[in-house]
Amino acid sequence: MDSSVARIGVLGCGTVGTAFVGLVARQAATVRARTGLALEIAAVAVRELDRDRPGIDPSLLTDDPAAVVADPAIDVVVEVMGGIDDARGLVLAALAAGKPVVTANKALLAVSGAELFAAAESAGVDLLFEPAVAGGIPLVRPLRESLLAEPIDLVVGIVNGTTNYILTQMTESGAGYADALAEAQSLGFAEADPTADVGGHDAAAKIAILASIAFGVVLTSDDVDVEGITAVTARDIAFADRHGFVLKLLAMAERHETSDGVRQSVRVHPTLVPVDHPLAAVRGSFNAVFVHGDAVGDLMFYGPGAGGAPTASAVLGDVVDAAVNLRRGTHASVGALADARLLDPAELIDAWYIGLEVDDRPGVLAVIAAALGEHGVSIASMDQDVADPDARVARIDLVIHPARTADVRATLDALRALEPVRSIDATVRVLPGVVGT
Amino acid sequence: MDSSVARIGVLGCGTVGTAFVGLVARQAATVRARTGLALEIAAVAVRELDRDRPGIDPSLLTDDPAAVVADPAIDVVVEVMGGIDDARGLVLAALAAGKPVVTANKALLAVSGAELFAAAESAGVDLLFEPAVAGGIPLVRPLRESLLAEPIDLVVGIVNGTTNYILTQMTESGAGYADALAEAQSLGFAEADPTADVGGHDAAAKIAILASIAFGVVLTSDDVDVEGITAVTARDIAFADRHGFVLKLLAMAERHETSDGVRQSVRVHPTLVPVDHPLAAVRGSFNAVFVHGDAVGDLMFYGPGAGGAPTASAVLGDVVDAAVNLRRGTHASVGALADARLLDPAELIDAWYIGLEVDDRPGVLAVIAAALGEHGVSIASMDQDVADPDARVARIDLVIHPARTADVRATLDALRALEPVRSIDATVRVLPGVVGT
Repeated sequence: MDSSVARIGVLGCGTVGTAFVGLVARQAATVRARTGLALEIAAVAVRELDRDRPGIDPSLLTDDPAAVVADPAIDVVVEVMGGIDDARGLVLAALAAGKPVVTANKALLAVSGAELFAAAESAGVDLLFEPAVAGGIPLVRPLRESLLAEPIDLVVGIVNGTTNYILTQMTESGAGYADALAEAQSLGFAEADPTADVGGHDAAAKIAILASIAFGVVLTSDDVDVEGITAVTARDIAFADRHGFVLKLLAMAERHETSDGVRQSVRVHPTLVPVDHPLAAVRGSFNAVFVHGDAVGDLMFYGPGAGGAPTASAVLGDVVDAAVNLRRGTHASVGALADARLLDPAELIDAWYIGLEVDDRPGVLAVIAAALGEHGVSIASMDQDVADPDARVARIDLVIHPARTADVRATLDALRALEPVRSIDATVRVLPGVVGT
Repeated sequence: MDSSVARIGVLGCGTVGTAFVGLVARQAATVRARTGLALEIAAVAVRELDRDRPGIDPSLLTDDPAAVVADPAIDVVVEVMGGIDDARGLVLAALAAGKPVVTANKALLAVSGAELFAAAESAGVDLLFEPAVAGGIPLVRPLRESLLAEPIDLVVGIVNGTTNYILTQMTESGAGYADALAEAQSLGFAEADPTADVGGHDAAAKIAILASIAFGVVLTSDDVDVEGITAVTARDIAFADRHGFVLKLLAMAERHETSDGVRQSVRVHPTLVPVDHPLAAVRGSFNAVFVHGDAVGDLMFYGPGAGGAPTASAVLGDVVDAAVNLRRGTHASVGALADARLLDPAELIDAWYIGLEVDDRPGVLAVIAAALGEHGVSIASMDQDVADPDARVARIDLVIHPARTADVRATLDALRALEPVRSIDATVRVLPGVVGT
């Protein structure tokens, strides 16, 4: 490329693409002063050419993204179109043409990351993806670069703003799940079809990407054990509040040293977090990712996990990096990713909160305790109160000491089969390291 | 340098230097796998050659740091010796010899940063300093790179672990300042002479460095308006607690758009932070830095702000970066720093908490309110109670709406001169943006 101008082709012009084009216009002078590079939006590929797009020069628009990627006058490609198949083909074509790519596409990376990283490496250009994981939070760069030599054993975060908004509302206003979801939808924090968010799938894609770079192994969305927030109840929230916890949807990647060597686990599920843990203070639609490294200890990165302007800020940071690297003839590298060796989720060892409704009569507790004991599961703390005196129903809230998930599942099956147990209404894991073994 | 080996000369072998040498030994294989670079500690310059240093090969020790810097076999210099004059000369000599330098020396950078950055730029090598600012927290790299194009208008943080430990103890145990300091000293969180920490000077050096890179201007320790925590009382803490605040020592850099153009302010002082602000949840000796950018919004970086292992982790991240850049023939750049245009601290506009002891008799409040009104200062909220019925002393706690510091100072002088005012016991600023104008 001309050493002083970086011509950018943008694929997609939704919220992030529009914000990015505006941000480049506002910040080009600063970038030029700090790096000597003039950023220039050279083309914007859109699906509908005739839609009104305020702030975007109509002469830049095209409905042919393949032509943008192939155009020799384009130096850097920004992929903010979303979707998987088309985006994958365009990113691969751009890399093959020697153009660095900045992508905000978490779904694509969580499915095809390893293939794309390898393509970037063999083309000798950048594939940068800060905006794909946690919106505006600088997280990928610190993990890839600052902590490259740090032995990381835990990445755990709140990486979905919609579910954190819903859970924060349930916690602070006492709303039930359905009401909190409806409110989030009416305020634009949740989509009409909220499945990807409330089902935990969006968080799963993000933690797969984060775990890949933190542990240096290939992990995809399919490797993530996922439970969303649709079964969270006001009872869970009330239990958390009484016992010094906040209930959060956490995405968690762990590195385990087992007798069989190093294994990884990656999961998303509702989790009880102690109120004095830094993640507990992350409210509303904010995101935060907590990282533990052997030398550095506990780190946390906090900020807006979505939204046009914050995500555009992350795109711009990566575009400047890619353009500077291109001028220098260098590129960033994820490094070779090893194959993952997944720990069977049944082998995860966690403390759990278990909420039951049982017959309110003498001896029931002894029966339950016996069932737990038979499976080697022990009680760390317990609450009991009468839920409905007329129906003679009592409510029991247990926290168990950390136990193998397989044993916990077997225990739950055994409890369900007990005659005095009417229902098991709550099964929520506790953040590892909080309840002693 | 040999393209596959990076030979490191370490200047200083205190807590950080020792931890760094150990970390390189443990992590060299990981670094090699991810970057192709073999890190090798080639020399360690110490003051006392004959001290016992477990884990360090005695054949690497020398008491001649200038020889380490001059040695053509050394590729990268790590400066963890501290102090200013000697360190400055050695860093300049290393840069002049074409060797990248990683430094943990905040005092040096806060005094001579601009000179050293210019020397690195003209030598075309890296001067990296992640470990100088907030121990293990990746903060300098995100600010320099991820947020290079982001218009940052606020950097505010808890950047001194000693004072945060003391204030956390005062808040959680109700201890007075002297007792909390003594406890921190006995546990090793505060030094025998705690002046640099409790006086705010350590925080001042760090915010001067952060502000320089966030705003792209030359700022030194001398530009920072500093007030430490030695005057913080249990009364201040109790007021904060009653009113939904936590008292923190904040280091704060702001970019102001004035009628006279852009100006910067940099300051350190005790500050009331709302309990639901992310900085309020930063307890004990942890550090956190909150950054506000126009596009990205609110970010926070949290972690251990000091300690051998975390700081060594930051040194290692920078050493890998410097070695990779050296192999590629590139270097990171702070960019040209402009001259700062400091806002006169008297022009800062803040809400304040003011605590008085006054005569407990009718009409006193009217006198005080009149004095405030004369200076254009208005009350946002007020508490009054009787401190000592026998002595007829009442206590008044005020929060004033944001006002020019010059006006607040004049108001305080006027209040002191009022006959019914016995003393002004508390003057603590509130985090900007919290109390409405």
